[in-house]
Amino acid sequence: MKNFEPFITQLNLKTGSIQPAARIIQRRLSDMCNFYFDEEARRRIVKEEGDRLIYEVFVTHVPEEEGHVLYGTTIIYPGLVGDEFHMTKGHFHKLRDQAEVYVGIAGSGYLIMQTEGGAVRSLKMEKGTIAYVPPCWAHRTVNTGDQPFVFFAAWPGEAGHDYGTIEESGFANIVVSRDNQALLIDNPNYR
Amino acid sequence: MKNFEPFITQLNLKTGSIQPAARIIQRRLSDMCNFYFDEEARRRIVKEEGDRLIYEVFVTHVPEEEGHVLYGTTIIYPGLVGDEFHMTKGHFHKLRDQAEVYVGIAGSGYLIMQTEGGAVRSLKMEKGTIAYVPPCWAHRTVNTGDQPFVFFAAWPGEAGHDYGTIEESGFANIVVSRDNQALLIDNPNYR
Repeated sequence: MKNFEPFITQLNLKTGSIQPAARIIQRRLSDMCNFYFDEEARRRIVKEEGDRLIYEVFVTHVPEEEGHVLYGTTIIYPGLVGDEFHMTKGHFHKLRDQAEVYVGIAGSGYLIMQTEGGAVRSLKMEKGTIAYVPPCWAHRTVNTGDQPFVFFAAWPGEAGHDYGTIEESGFANIVVSRDNQALLIDNPNYR
Repeated sequence: MKNFEPFITQLNLKTGSIQPAARIIQRRLSDMCNFYFDEEARRRIVKEEGDRLIYEVFVTHVPEEEGHVLYGTTIIYPGLVGDEFHMTKGHFHKLRDQAEVYVGIAGSGYLIMQTEGGAVRSLKMEKGTIAYVPPCWAHRTVNTGDQPFVFFAAWPGEAGHDYGTIEESGFANIVVSRDNQALLIDNPNYR
């Protein structure tokens, strides 16, 4: 660990890209089977309109180890699947007691969170908002605007990701468009 | 730890202030006895020109505990002490093997780093630069521009701060103004 070298990367504060990035994770609509309430709409879009890019995550080569601080940017492109806004898959950390901090860079949206104990919270984010995800909160971000929603995130090297729990249960809340307004409602599919 | 609530604060991307902040740490020139090479110049400025504000750090109420991610902004005001640029005190983490990540928000400067094993590095930072301070590197930031140098930082909750080691030894490099250029030179006082 002592031999890891300091380094810089450049964050484009307009687009959210990081150059150079070690990895760019792209999530398309076909990667998000059963994540949206209206699964039929999701399938129809993939089939009839093509496989939309929903979000991208730029990360660098920091080791996923205790003591390191991982960081990256997420860009959620604007749009709807049925009447549900584009969003990330969302996850718990594999080590549940590890936090995360977000800084809004461009666009706007919601950060929705929940604990395994049943607590549910949401925070509105825009450019300059710093949002704190404490230990033990699952987190998902949702783009409720008409521009890319971009944020920077930093989290502990050892935290890891558990996508499976959310993939199974969903989030208690979903964010939908009603009369051109973003509305948080109970997720009928939440189990 | 499970009961800690998610929260937001607002980062002013022009000034670097965080509202609300739990604490604003202000370091004035009188707080930095023996940190600058030209200690005589430092004393003279405090006496004749007044006690300059060198830098401010905005932090929130995240617990300093394992699993949390602490964050804050630093604003280093532009200026010289003798021919040395305004800078932070600089520190190791108390737990040496804990990293830190910086994001440049405004202005420009240097991040200078060194290990206890004698390695020395520096990175130039400006708006959008993401700089990674790996585990075991002491870090100091220096404003080499004519505007406030502002950056966001995130580091592990348990890292802690050791200012004493740097206060004793100084950094191997200092950043001085020569012919209106920023120049890294060996610190004659380094021990």
